Amino acid sequence: MKKITQKSFPNSKKIYVVGKIHNIKVAMREITLSDTKDSDGNIIKNDPITVYDTSGAYTDPEIVIDIKKGLPKLRKEWILKRKDVKQLKSLSSKYGNERINNKSLDKIRFEHYNKTPLRAKSSKPVSQYFYARNGIITPEMEYVAIRENQRIDQIKEKYKNYKTNKEYVQVPTSYITPEFVRNEIAEGRAILPANINHPESEPMIIGKNFLVKINANIGNSPTTSSIEEEVEKAVWAFRWGADTIMDLSTGKNIHETREWVIRNSPVPVGTVPLYQALEKVDGDVQSLSWEIYRDTLIEQCEQGVDYFTIHAGLLWEHIRYTVHRTTGIVSRGGSIMAKWILQHQQENFLYTHFDEICDILAAYDVGVSLGDGLRPGSQSDANDISQISELRTLGKLTKMAHKKFVQVIIEGPGHVPMHLIKENMELQQKYCNDAPFYTLGPLVTDIAPGYDHITSAIGGAMIAAYGTSMLCYVTQKEHLGLPDRNDVKEGVITFKLAAHAADLAKGFPGAQYRDYVMSKARFEFRWRDQFSLALDSEKAMAFHDQTLPEEGYKTTHFCSMCGENFCSMRASMEVKELSKKTEAKMKEFNEFGDVYK
Amino acid sequence: MKKITQKSFPNSKKIYVVGKIHNIKVAMREITLSDTKDSDGNIIKNDPITVYDTSGAYTDPEIVIDIKKGLPKLRKEWILKRKDVKQLKSLSSKYGNERINNKSLDKIRFEHYNKTPLRAKSSKPVSQYFYARNGIITPEMEYVAIRENQRIDQIKEKYKNYKTNKEYVQVPTSYITPEFVRNEIAEGRAILPANINHPESEPMIIGKNFLVKINANIGNSPTTSSIEEEVEKAVWAFRWGADTIMDLSTGKNIHETREWVIRNSPVPVGTVPLYQALEKVDGDVQSLSWEIYRDTLIEQCEQGVDYFTIHAGLLWEHIRYTVHRTTGIVSRGGSIMAKWILQHQQENFLYTHFDEICDILAAYDVGVSLGDGLRPGSQSDANDISQISELRTLGKLTKMAHKKFVQVIIEGPGHVPMHLIKENMELQQKYCNDAPFYTLGPLVTDIAPGYDHITSAIGGAMIAAYGTSMLCYVTQKEHLGLPDRNDVKEGVITFKLAAHAADLAKGFPGAQYRDYVMSKARFEFRWRDQFSLALDSEKAMAFHDQTLPEEGYKTTHFCSMCGENFCSMRASMEVKELSKKTEAKMKEFNEFGDVYK
Repeated sequence: MKKITQKSFPNSKKIYVVGKIHNIKVAMREITLSDTKDSDGNIIKNDPITVYDTSGAYTDPEIVIDIKKGLPKLRKEWILKRKDVKQLKSLSSKYGNERINNKSLDKIRFEHYNKTPLRAKSSKPVSQYFYARNGIITPEMEYVAIRENQRIDQIKEKYKNYKTNKEYVQVPTSYITPEFVRNEIAEGRAILPANINHPESEPMIIGKNFLVKINANIGNSPTTSSIEEEVEKAVWAFRWGADTIMDLSTGKNIHETREWVIRNSPVPVGTVPLYQALEKVDGDVQSLSWEIYRDTLIEQCEQGVDYFTIHAGLLWEHIRYTVHRTTGIVSRGGSIMAKWILQHQQENFLYTHFDEICDILAAYDVGVSLGDGLRPGSQSDANDISQISELRTLGKLTKMAHKKFVQVIIEGPGHVPMHLIKENMELQQKYCNDAPFYTLGPLVTDIAPGYDHITSAIGGAMIAAYGTSMLCYVTQKEHLGLPDRNDVKEGVITFKLAAHAADLAKGFPGAQYRDYVMSKARFEFRWRDQFSLALDSEKAMAFHDQTLPEEGYKTTHFCSMCGENFCSMRASMEVKELSKKTEAKMKEFNEFGDVYK
Repeated sequence: MKKITQKSFPNSKKIYVVGKIHNIKVAMREITLSDTKDSDGNIIKNDPITVYDTSGAYTDPEIVIDIKKGLPKLRKEWILKRKDVKQLKSLSSKYGNERINNKSLDKIRFEHYNKTPLRAKSSKPVSQYFYARNGIITPEMEYVAIRENQRIDQIKEKYKNYKTNKEYVQVPTSYITPEFVRNEIAEGRAILPANINHPESEPMIIGKNFLVKINANIGNSPTTSSIEEEVEKAVWAFRWGADTIMDLSTGKNIHETREWVIRNSPVPVGTVPLYQALEKVDGDVQSLSWEIYRDTLIEQCEQGVDYFTIHAGLLWEHIRYTVHRTTGIVSRGGSIMAKWILQHQQENFLYTHFDEICDILAAYDVGVSLGDGLRPGSQSDANDISQISELRTLGKLTKMAHKKFVQVIIEGPGHVPMHLIKENMELQQKYCNDAPFYTLGPLVTDIAPGYDHITSAIGGAMIAAYGTSMLCYVTQKEHLGLPDRNDVKEGVITFKLAAHAADLAKGFPGAQYRDYVMSKARFEFRWRDQFSLALDSEKAMAFHDQTLPEEGYKTTHFCSMCGENFCSMRASMEVKELSKKTEAKMKEFNEFGDVYK
């Protein structure tokens, strides 16, 4: 049996910040720092720093993890208190019922499988968007407001003082209030994925006025055997920073595996229901039908999936544009639907049934992530007529979904050269009414297979700085094979750093403060603190220790990169001391005048 | 003895394109591609593609490599033909003479050590800048013109046809002519590093209107023993794409090691002479003097170093600004000079002797890379008054150097958040008269040690797209330790992809064509071609083969990432076929109108 990774991060503890409106406790990670010793030998204490934490209960040693029981149901009471949902007597999907009545699946089925899921009581939607439109601040909304602030209020004074460079903070962001969160959701500029059947999830928000989020794709493969391994894949992904996960399983027992994953996931879970629908017809695209798809939607809504990728914007009339492309259609869902359309000589059934889809989603608060079936798969196809035509349709669908009070995000590319990224972002905002953009990279060149986590992190950081709300990670195995555990971690950290770089560019004080604290630790040779503050503490320490493993080198004033005599940081500290002593002489110099301009 | 890496790249051969003005042969790499099979079973031949090649003679099986003899002296005749240099009777530097007369060094000394180097005959400079200003197109200039074009003329017709997306090519660049090269050098917008004592180098150019270049730092360390290992480090770096290397050795026998490296390097070699000068005074900054530094410059000029980093712009009056920084002074050279200034209570001797420095450099055509001793070492120090004050001084020094006909590049940061990168580039262009910018990254966040090749590739790609001419690579060991062989390769490839992404954004047809050819191979499942066209063929193939190693899978229409039924490329090809058959039906649809705008 695969062990689930649970240990805490170095010098960190889980803390909980309580709400003011609602009785909620918001989980965060607090990193303890060591003291600064100044040149006169004085000890100056460094306050701990609080950072955003996606790792859930797995890094809280106080909570006993038992994946057979699943995580505590954090949101259950909040949901029931709203009195707008009813507990069903049985599952509503044909397929779901088949699976729970299949005795041969008993041994792999989640023990506490919920056969009586929740659903909206009446035709009134139960979505966060609906509440927001009605002026209601839910516990979920207050949760994300507190979470996004990262306790920056506590270091407010320090934050003011650390600035020596006024140019650095671009947008002096005010603290995020619950009302601000509500308004952003109500305007459709942000979504808070929160299926009423996934009460285990810790609320998070995706929108351009919030921290940039990242998604990691997981999914079983025919060779993977144990359920524990599947759960561990998910835990591994959000441990390193995945804000949501998408379960893209295409093998056997995906219904059962998904149940295990959702019950143990503190982050929202997304899927592409089309994949499972296709499995149900043994991979034969022609046999796909609205009925099978609809049943799959309901099956997954009742399991607790938080958002669905739906390729409803790829229309028959768009297909002709793709024929002359360098790489045709590269979205899996897109290519399936294009094939179906041409085989049936009928319009995309996801488009023709879109209103009905929205009605289903609104009854469980499942968000729709409008898939970009025609995203470019190469630099030369970027921002072309295929892509932009579909994007316009996605804009139309956004309005339809909002009318039904369904939360909407828009998926984006793909492969885009750097000079076309901004235009892509602007067109998305224009056509889709500022609905959050969720992109896959984009990759800024096609010629670096084996390094596509990097080619896509470059595009990802840029498009996020321009306003994209969530980045789907890409691993180094992209275009070449199935990622393994290490690839997943490298991919998540790479996208975390890209998202964080965009947060800095957008001027989020909490993000900037962490860089400041890290750099201060670096300048003061507090090696342990540098490791604790790093996105990947383990790797940072391992790299350092490769050449200087002894404990004594955790406080020395140099590292093996430049050695003792050539350490600029060390010399710079000496310069600081010398400056003090020679201040009088320095003052003899005239002011340099307006050097900056 | 360490074996020198020499094998050719897969399915590639070295070709030589002859000049039209001069009797020159320009080395390039030609990649052979396999045939395309269309859906009707027709075989369509794919023309080979020519790519820029920095690997030198090491990938030409026709040339016998003997590092004891060094590379063929490609430029020797060109230099002598100009009749403006004389062969000295002996070395001009005191230190150089000491070393060659030291018998104990005989066994590590390069056998064919040149004791009679070249120097300008009169006071007339012998720099490419001087020739360019006088309207002369040198063989070096014609070489780089041919090299930069990557034989795009040969695929001109194909290049025209491949475009389906008019938006993609931003700047339809005309082919680069020798006259264009001359003019760019004459305007100071580009430099062609070409020490007359490094005739082994293959000419290359650094400037914003040319392909973006990358530099890799190498350098010995006390633990490294053999000369072969040092040469192999250099060969390894330019094999993977380093356009120049900087030898930053700080250990023993650096004079002798440098000789071996230069004699075997087809790419320009840069150094920071201050490091060796400091070694000569046993690391004691206070003992540094202009005399020791001057002797070091001459020593290195006569060995063949192509450009020097010189921290002449860090002035006494700037130091006060650094005291309040988060990370003070992080440039090694910068911190050394700041310390010297304060200890001596005197202005930077590199600044006060700058005219004399230029006279020396002009006599050997050594370029000056004006070091940014006050580059920011953290996000919060970016674009601050320290950095910008020094940058203004660098602008002043640029003019001084140009008056002496010395070629100039300007070094840049460092650590800069994304929203300040463009401003940094603009200020550099403004203050330094469009002299080429050469940056270290910049890193766009401080919190990802272990991943700083990526944080810096993000900033590097962006600043290069804005106009930076050369990027200094950063390895994943940055801030943590000494890079090993694998770190060097990862760093070089990472910066190569960043530079290439910028080339795409700048609209270089040759760069775009390679991406197109790669994506076409990808769409047609020509796996071998994908590996050949990749920046790192070995890794791409290794990743693919981890799951599907059998030879048969090199042509199958899927990979292990999505498997057979979920391969979008495969489905997309089917869509293409279906489209043909249903064309009539599709035409019944009305035109979509002006969808793009």
